[in-house]
Amino acid sequence: MDLSLRSLAKADVPAIEALLLANRPVFSDEECKTAVEMVHETFAQPNAADPYQWVVADEAGKAVGFACFGTIPLTKGTFDLYFIAVHPETHARGVGKTLLRWVENAVAEQGGHLICVETSSRQDYAKTRRFYEQTMRYETACRIKDFYKKGDDKIIYIKYLEARREH
Amino acid sequence: MDLSLRSLAKADVPAIEALLLANRPVFSDEECKTAVEMVHETFAQPNAADPYQWVVADEAGKAVGFACFGTIPLTKGTFDLYFIAVHPETHARGVGKTLLRWVENAVAEQGGHLICVETSSRQDYAKTRRFYEQTMRYETACRIKDFYKKGDDKIIYIKYLEARREH
Repeated sequence: MDLSLRSLAKADVPAIEALLLANRPVFSDEECKTAVEMVHETFAQPNAADPYQWVVADEAGKAVGFACFGTIPLTKGTFDLYFIAVHPETHARGVGKTLLRWVENAVAEQGGHLICVETSSRQDYAKTRRFYEQTMRYETACRIKDFYKKGDDKIIYIKYLEARREH
Repeated sequence: MDLSLRSLAKADVPAIEALLLANRPVFSDEECKTAVEMVHETFAQPNAADPYQWVVADEAGKAVGFACFGTIPLTKGTFDLYFIAVHPETHARGVGKTLLRWVENAVAEQGGHLICVETSSRQDYAKTRRFYEQTMRYETACRIKDFYKKGDDKIIYIKYLEARREH
């Protein structure tokens, strides 16, 4: 099936919610709720100075994956990858890689030089960590023990980009 | 002069704004604005489930320092020290230490086990870093190169506390 990347549409909201829920327990109920709130906030504030930015992976008109990113407040040229998710039925086909490469390119086009991603040390995130470390070649900036809760550390991944223009 | 710690009052807003501005360039204009917005948000939402928490260092009825902290969303028992500031005229008299000790105690009382603080590698933050590292014995969790902007790294300090109750 052909995959294409496109911008987020209001009609994607149910598919995005469904693919987040299908990824539990990697996304907790609270994280699913946060992501959906961010979608709504994006449409509620179409003229925000510094909006959440989205890209959707589309297969036959349906959102099978998405990424959400944006600048980190009080920084110049540093971006946060807030969410990246692919429907489990579409896993292992390179959709995540295609999405994140697109994000990296978009960040560089906007003059960004650094992308940060935060993830968990939990066992059910092993595939996620392999994705950042091995597939996407992110560097581990640090691991903060017991950050999310006792026994659940935070790992910060970073990747430096060559900015395409001065920010 | 006697120093006491007390909760934040609406009447403190001008003094807080003044002491932030007096600490430039350690606090940028944008950071001063953010802190003042957080004060206003606190008073606008007195029943917030998870409010910003403040403590004020008072000398003869005037706010000469303050700290602001709160739980980090999507964590259990981890707190962020958002801001701590002391008026430059009151520096080097232990006000910061008194404030941060109070915060650490409050976090532990609330069942928190970890406090995180983010600061900059810039030269004008040297005193701030000494405060966390030497005076308050915070551990450096990581340093992310060029995070704030090129040449301005982010340092994350952490301190593990013994929680006083289960969170």
